Amino acid sequence: MTALSSAERGEVDVAVVANPPAGSLQGLPGLRLIQSLWAGVDRLMLDSTLPPDVPVARMVDPHMNDAMAQTALWAVLSLHRGFFDYARQQAEACWLPLPQRRADEVRVSVLGLGQMGGTVARALQAAGYAVTGWRLGAEPPASPSPVPSCSGLPALPGLLAQTDVLINLLPLTPATTGLLNAELFARLPKGASVVNLARGAHLVEADLLAALSSGHISRAVLDVFATEPLPTAHAFWRHPKVTVLPHAAAATDPRSAAAVVAANVQALRAGRPLAHQVSRSAGY
Amino acid sequence: MTALSSAERGEVDVAVVANPPAGSLQGLPGLRLIQSLWAGVDRLMLDSTLPPDVPVARMVDPHMNDAMAQTALWAVLSLHRGFFDYARQQAEACWLPLPQRRADEVRVSVLGLGQMGGTVARALQAAGYAVTGWRLGAEPPASPSPVPSCSGLPALPGLLAQTDVLINLLPLTPATTGLLNAELFARLPKGASVVNLARGAHLVEADLLAALSSGHISRAVLDVFATEPLPTAHAFWRHPKVTVLPHAAAATDPRSAAAVVAANVQALRAGRPLAHQVSRSAGY
Repeated sequence: MTALSSAERGEVDVAVVANPPAGSLQGLPGLRLIQSLWAGVDRLMLDSTLPPDVPVARMVDPHMNDAMAQTALWAVLSLHRGFFDYARQQAEACWLPLPQRRADEVRVSVLGLGQMGGTVARALQAAGYAVTGWRLGAEPPASPSPVPSCSGLPALPGLLAQTDVLINLLPLTPATTGLLNAELFARLPKGASVVNLARGAHLVEADLLAALSSGHISRAVLDVFATEPLPTAHAFWRHPKVTVLPHAAAATDPRSAAAVVAANVQALRAGRPLAHQVSRSAGY
Repeated sequence: MTALSSAERGEVDVAVVANPPAGSLQGLPGLRLIQSLWAGVDRLMLDSTLPPDVPVARMVDPHMNDAMAQTALWAVLSLHRGFFDYARQQAEACWLPLPQRRADEVRVSVLGLGQMGGTVARALQAAGYAVTGWRLGAEPPASPSPVPSCSGLPALPGLLAQTDVLINLLPLTPATTGLLNAELFARLPKGASVVNLARGAHLVEADLLAALSSGHISRAVLDVFATEPLPTAHAFWRHPKVTVLPHAAAATDPRSAAAVVAANVQALRAGRPLAHQVSRSAGY
């Protein structure tokens, strides 16, 4: 942006951004749309200099949703069928088949039923798992879903008590920061697993380490962290019950994302409603 | 069997077996059905004392098919999305997201389109992969399938040349023993992966080790071995490009298998056709 002349800055009507430095979007008097290339706009929305009246749109890339469903399905299959355990057994040349449950005996709860959480919940249900979704807000979901769901904080303890695998796909907002904490873990049955595919700040990392040490939580699969890249000395790297992914659960696919951006730019210029506009009050 | 009196042996009309010692089914003059609890009857059919005129039925357990589809899907997701690589990176505290392909860019070929291969091929196709099936025999499949397929040895080289992940689910017969050998690996593109979920004798283990060493095959996921349990000193256990499972890809589920056995016993007694009868000439 800083390389643009004043005249050029006046001509910018659409900013396509991927977590730019705070202040980058100031001084663009003609700006009419801020289109994020990221699905999670939590960092962008923290920029207090963001022009207050310019609409912000999130990236909703169908191929990114598919990639997230693949990662979630891989994590649940690995937990359900013991593939993390077999990897440890291989390191010890230990031949020991484990008991085999059916998919419908594994209760998976998905926190967040937006574009990603909804896609993940449907994919896991199609694979035979006993899936329940949960939304923080009480408003009905944007589109009807075949996945049973509940909503609101009062409903959460009852759901957690019936959960074998907890998958977090909530947006990061002040209301969801730190939600995956000691109190939540204590409400899960002993032996449950936690999969965090959303944002590192959803999780109180020390609380998870304690719940793993006590044996109450049996395993965690983590794609996101308070500090990324995960510092070399962090306990997660070498923890036998933690699977670390390098924020790779789902990347934007440039081929499909380009079409999403183009459609929103066309909508703006034709005066049609924008897709996937962020609510400034909700933060996502 | 040896604990039965002569009078008791005369009364046995159904033998429900799981790879009994050779000779176990001799001296049962009233035997009218040998019902295997295993899907693969290759070891049973090697018993030269098997009564030649008594029908043998294989186990076809829908939950076992589902379990096999889960294992195949986990293996393909792991290969496609780099989860084996991320496990190695975690051991080195290495944070490195890998390129992300779409599922429809991954060509998966399934050898064998019987109950298990067919279920696996459909599940992988439903997950978005570019799946092709292959059968050894030229006869059409028992039930129509949405999965594209080809058949016969002459069609195999062309399919292999277009394969990123090769999954073996063939029955073990003299015609398929050793099929996964150096010649077959050489026909795969460089960097392809091999998943053996059928029988250890399908694979020439030394040929696979050579193809992994040369880098032509990038990774193998093996559930079955020439000798099981896999001997502690075997190179597969500690090979960085081999994932070892302890013959755990799919176990018979006693709850659903009991119903399958009961249905075949009822069919026998009512004079109805038996389900999943083994062809003595084909060996499966």
